Amino acid sequence: MKLSKRITAMQESPIRKLVPYAQGAKANGKHVYHLNIGQPDIETPTSFMKSIKNFDEKVLAYSSSQGMPELIDAIINYYKKYDIHYEQDEILITNGGSEALLFAIIAIADANDEILVPEPFYTNYNGFSSAVDVKVSPITCKAEEGFHLPSKFEIEELINPRTKAILISNPGNPTGVVYTKEELKILAELAEEYNIFIIADEVYREFVYDGLHYTSFGNIEKIQDRVVIIDSVSKRYSACGARIGSIASKNKELIRQILKLCQGRLCVPTLEQIGSVELYKTPQEYFNEVNTEYQNRRDIVYNGLSEIPGVLCKKPTGAFYVVAKLPVDDAEKFAIWLLKDFDVDGETVMLAPAEGFYATPGLGKNEARIAYILNENDLKKAMNILKLALEKYPNTTLIPQSCC
Amino acid sequence: MKLSKRITAMQESPIRKLVPYAQGAKANGKHVYHLNIGQPDIETPTSFMKSIKNFDEKVLAYSSSQGMPELIDAIINYYKKYDIHYEQDEILITNGGSEALLFAIIAIADANDEILVPEPFYTNYNGFSSAVDVKVSPITCKAEEGFHLPSKFEIEELINPRTKAILISNPGNPTGVVYTKEELKILAELAEEYNIFIIADEVYREFVYDGLHYTSFGNIEKIQDRVVIIDSVSKRYSACGARIGSIASKNKELIRQILKLCQGRLCVPTLEQIGSVELYKTPQEYFNEVNTEYQNRRDIVYNGLSEIPGVLCKKPTGAFYVVAKLPVDDAEKFAIWLLKDFDVDGETVMLAPAEGFYATPGLGKNEARIAYILNENDLKKAMNILKLALEKYPNTTLIPQSCC
Repeated sequence: MKLSKRITAMQESPIRKLVPYAQGAKANGKHVYHLNIGQPDIETPTSFMKSIKNFDEKVLAYSSSQGMPELIDAIINYYKKYDIHYEQDEILITNGGSEALLFAIIAIADANDEILVPEPFYTNYNGFSSAVDVKVSPITCKAEEGFHLPSKFEIEELINPRTKAILISNPGNPTGVVYTKEELKILAELAEEYNIFIIADEVYREFVYDGLHYTSFGNIEKIQDRVVIIDSVSKRYSACGARIGSIASKNKELIRQILKLCQGRLCVPTLEQIGSVELYKTPQEYFNEVNTEYQNRRDIVYNGLSEIPGVLCKKPTGAFYVVAKLPVDDAEKFAIWLLKDFDVDGETVMLAPAEGFYATPGLGKNEARIAYILNENDLKKAMNILKLALEKYPNTTLIPQSCC
Repeated sequence: MKLSKRITAMQESPIRKLVPYAQGAKANGKHVYHLNIGQPDIETPTSFMKSIKNFDEKVLAYSSSQGMPELIDAIINYYKKYDIHYEQDEILITNGGSEALLFAIIAIADANDEILVPEPFYTNYNGFSSAVDVKVSPITCKAEEGFHLPSKFEIEELINPRTKAILISNPGNPTGVVYTKEELKILAELAEEYNIFIIADEVYREFVYDGLHYTSFGNIEKIQDRVVIIDSVSKRYSACGARIGSIASKNKELIRQILKLCQGRLCVPTLEQIGSVELYKTPQEYFNEVNTEYQNRRDIVYNGLSEIPGVLCKKPTGAFYVVAKLPVDDAEKFAIWLLKDFDVDGETVMLAPAEGFYATPGLGKNEARIAYILNENDLKKAMNILKLALEKYPNTTLIPQSCC
């Protein structure tokens, strides 16, 4: 039996290929600093488990397909802090931001339609889209420009009659870019002029540094009927294993249609919703603390990268990632070499090669994503290992200083 | 902006239209016996919450995309009781049986492909399929034949080069049919002859009555490379709100491909998996008790229906549903009338009109699904209300006895 073309063509996780090498390194007694994954080490607010432990119904029954009203209310309240105002019938609870994305794509695009996505992008944007026969059309962004968007004209050139939406992560995964209000306005204009949707993945909304002002697509008044906001408790409250996400839109018809998909999968886990109600009530101080911690980590990583000859990266201002150009021919080969052939006192690092974050063939080959989800001490050690590794790596593209 | 054709064409829940009428009835002080939903009232084994309450990790992290190894092992052990033998890399944990179904369909069928499904069927089979552009091709089964399958020849006639799988629920939702070993063998032969998959939704595996022998598609040796078994803790352990399901197949390449979809959505909730490990260890006595309870309920419903003039239904032998032909022109109208215009001492019943369980237009118009998920006392009252209602219903299709 043949499997479907869409599943066989679906992109695999770019890190997957490296897993056996990491396992091998660990089997050989090496300690691996994981700079490759987006699993924060911050503690989940204890309110989450506390409320779940209080659950005492005898039957763990289906909950509402739309989501628990208490959780929807908690999210409505949360958005108010950002001056974003939703009503009960404008929000759906989903199995993580992942399901929110998949459902939004299905509802907006048919087979062979296209969705514009700034690249490098979160790999699963491509995975979900291709699984439902939607094509990701990349808006190429460059390390040299801190991965900010190209001109309106350049984006406009990519739009055609099959283009149904712009899907954008802000702050950006994997780049850590925080788009300016002006950039958002340009996308909003394009969405209006070409009558398309904006799917705004804002799961890193709180992770913005240097006192930068963050603008949500929920704040751009005149296009609210075409904005879909994807959210999740995973990164916001370090509750990745809860798998609670949401879709919000002032386009009530869109929500009504996506509700059919929600009804199809019946409901989202009851307990995790109960816990998430409490998460959304977490006081602002939590974010202040977490933010300070991540900003310090960002500084360690950025300063560390800046000191390495041949590395190119602009200072990222959001999320907990950075994509850096490395002085190597192939970042995947380098990542494998780090695991297989290199260590500093029995320790090494694992990177995420960035090629898999691009849709345009050949781009990102010498780039890697670094996630700063380790404590400051470990991060410092990891950055030092990376520096020493790039000095020793045989396939460096740096012209040795001595020869010039 | 236009929404996608696939979302706008997607079938809504057949019960949805009735919800406002049920709400109206309740607002008017009527008690409504819900015979329309598949939410069991049986208590969830306490081992589920007990194990979750013991969770004490500080960070609720992502778990493995494939599913927790402990849960996969528990499911492997569970299957052994049925003489079905899976290995670790032949099972994936999913967000309920729903996600298992969706992923199996995406992996097996491309846009415009077809999947054969005995009708009446679980509505969401159609919902999921159409959401990903796959067509459900119905194998029509009849109330008069207890919804058993038609001849091999009749099924064969429906197969064409676009047919990629047979999707079948056994025991059947909404019909309560338990297919015989001979019926399974016919489907297995067809699957081999036409090189297609069998997606076996066996979430009601334990709900088989009258001492009937149950055959799983996992027991038909020679076609194991083309069998995909869908399972779930929802009905089995009355844990519908847990949303833990699974996909199992001896076709390792299929599992490897579906794992890409699993990686795309990162993981299934951690806590619910921890709880489900314990559910899968529930001793056999639990099933014996539950089974006796459901068999008694089935008897109440079946005997009740048999006593109503003009009602046609064969004795169902599995799950907790029955589809009955009613002496009415339109079961949906009748269901609305029950909620809006009828009561016995302030009480009425809610049925699920069966038309939405058919893909063939016009079929099932005078049929309804009854779920026996109420206690025996309530069920008796509900069946009496149904009987009195059919005596009074103005649009009965019964020729009055007095006129002949």
